[in-house]
Amino acid sequence: MNSALDTSTSTVTIDLGDRSYDILVGHGLLGRSQTWEGLPRSAAAVIVTNETVGPLYAEVLQAQLQARFSQVLQVTLPDGESHKHWGTLNQVFDRLLEAGCDRKTVLFALGGGVVGDMTGFAAACYMRGVPFVQVPTTLLAQVDSSVGGKTGINHPLGKNMIGAFYQPQRVVCDLATLDTLPERELSAGLAEIIKYGPIADEGFLDWIEANIDALRTRQPAALAHAVRRSCEIKAWVVSQDEREGGLRAILNFGHTFGHAIEAGLGYGEWLHGEAVGCGMVMAAALSAEVGLVPTSYAERLRRLIERAGLPVVAPALGAQRFLELMRVDKKAEAGDIRYVLIEAPGRAVVRAVPDPTVARVIEACSRG
Amino acid sequence: MNSALDTSTSTVTIDLGDRSYDILVGHGLLGRSQTWEGLPRSAAAVIVTNETVGPLYAEVLQAQLQARFSQVLQVTLPDGESHKHWGTLNQVFDRLLEAGCDRKTVLFALGGGVVGDMTGFAAACYMRGVPFVQVPTTLLAQVDSSVGGKTGINHPLGKNMIGAFYQPQRVVCDLATLDTLPERELSAGLAEIIKYGPIADEGFLDWIEANIDALRTRQPAALAHAVRRSCEIKAWVVSQDEREGGLRAILNFGHTFGHAIEAGLGYGEWLHGEAVGCGMVMAAALSAEVGLVPTSYAERLRRLIERAGLPVVAPALGAQRFLELMRVDKKAEAGDIRYVLIEAPGRAVVRAVPDPTVARVIEACSRG
Repeated sequence: MNSALDTSTSTVTIDLGDRSYDILVGHGLLGRSQTWEGLPRSAAAVIVTNETVGPLYAEVLQAQLQARFSQVLQVTLPDGESHKHWGTLNQVFDRLLEAGCDRKTVLFALGGGVVGDMTGFAAACYMRGVPFVQVPTTLLAQVDSSVGGKTGINHPLGKNMIGAFYQPQRVVCDLATLDTLPERELSAGLAEIIKYGPIADEGFLDWIEANIDALRTRQPAALAHAVRRSCEIKAWVVSQDEREGGLRAILNFGHTFGHAIEAGLGYGEWLHGEAVGCGMVMAAALSAEVGLVPTSYAERLRRLIERAGLPVVAPALGAQRFLELMRVDKKAEAGDIRYVLIEAPGRAVVRAVPDPTVARVIEACSRG
Repeated sequence: MNSALDTSTSTVTIDLGDRSYDILVGHGLLGRSQTWEGLPRSAAAVIVTNETVGPLYAEVLQAQLQARFSQVLQVTLPDGESHKHWGTLNQVFDRLLEAGCDRKTVLFALGGGVVGDMTGFAAACYMRGVPFVQVPTTLLAQVDSSVGGKTGINHPLGKNMIGAFYQPQRVVCDLATLDTLPERELSAGLAEIIKYGPIADEGFLDWIEANIDALRTRQPAALAHAVRRSCEIKAWVVSQDEREGGLRAILNFGHTFGHAIEAGLGYGEWLHGEAVGCGMVMAAALSAEVGLVPTSYAERLRRLIERAGLPVVAPALGAQRFLELMRVDKKAEAGDIRYVLIEAPGRAVVRAVPDPTVARVIEACSRG
């Protein structure tokens, strides 16, 4: 693993037959012409970004794309999870149609998870599907949301309830864009990185524990390894189960509790990664409560999540409200909540747990 | 072909690998339990219909589904193309989420093309995809829109601009539902049936000419053959080109002009099939104008379309407006309008034609 601790560009491939694509990971990829070689040809490219990221990175991307497309448009969306709804998505459609964009137009999602999810869904739906490229500029988007083709928007009654599985042509993770990331968002990204340890690679969990300070101080080699290894694990899972028929559900470790926190507080109050961080504390505690892992393992995860700068105590929503919110989660089936639990260090399992057991864990993990 | 002129149930298969499915064609299929055998299992089924079709057929479908699903909901949408937009689609999502429908829920589209397109798109997007079944109750939906997986909604700037390729689990064409179809809609369906002749099967065109009166008077054997043969041709085309990369575009014969008529007059003024009927007259005239077929062939098609009860003279939008509307059509590429023309009787080709040539044909085909 030490040999991987350099900062050169590396490529991780998502193997999905004719929908396969590469994830490029490296410093300064945005401004390098090779990064953009071999994409589908078209008259028009459209950069979809938000009002925070656009001023920082749209210009360098625009310059690269102008060398390849005769028309390069830009759509700037408002920033934040609270704007991840139909009205904002429609701004993209309006702009594409007003500009006469045809069905070969290539969309570029420049931003975090919200921009990536909405641009991907816009690409999935515009004229029944146009190609798109993910250019994630947050740690969370680089290690999780930009990879694997989950796209969508929120509905007042649930997060990501309207969407599509739609794979990008390429994912470009430029580690240099993490330099401008607020600390709170860096921590949110670390939550998804930590996730890959307990569900798939105990050795990676050891590495994260040893390097958590290097990651928080953004040491390039540490970030490069963390992003690359996270993408490798995600690629391995998604290649086996693109549409979440089974295995892929393990990637939702911490997300069932996390989504309930986000919905219960109102989207945007906690960052998604913060809710997932706290959700993992709860899911690990539940894994210990039902006897799958020792309490010490749950405690070890809790400490690491805390060291990552993430909340480890849940908001006081009350156990009943928590359960209610989890029952409308997409992973629920016929009212049964499906929990991703740690079966053994480095291995996850998806199963139901009786409400009273879950309620006990929620109370123990919540603000008093 | 005579052996096919009976009224028993027949099955046409759309061959798309793991997305393959059957089209059942027959009288009285709705109320027969075998029709609904072998669909995905789930706790809940949702019938999506409209205020015109629901009162006629929802009850018999509901009774059948209640034997197989523990919960059967119904969502009734307003009737008509003018409601085929995001707001109406969102009524379906609201209802599904309020009822706590999970991602195994099966949707049933009971109605014409608008209901089928919207239900299919709702199924494509709800929790990133749930199974759905097409139960088309108009002739147009039975022979065209319910088959092949094109789903979507309109945008103020264009028809079907937002959508997905998403295949149903099954298509159930109950010919008995055509008994209640208004005459104008029957004619609209005949437009899409006539289409299959010049683009793919000259023998079928001969048959339609010989049986056009039997079709207009709804003789069961004639309708059964017309629906079955239309579905066979569509299945053959879609099986080769699911996502309209090439061949499938021939199914849009008459549609480029037709969409311009619909958009120019405002959606819903002419029925889709009426616009396609008139559009085929124009596309056939254009085929003759560029020398692909003799004028007599275009005239033969015009006469048949007129005998089907369809308009054969275009509204006076003006050639420039026509061209402008066609340039934003989904089939346009980099501003080039792609016309489906008859290359030889029974064979279509997709190509560009200079604007002045098209303008001449538009003027000749329009109300003076």
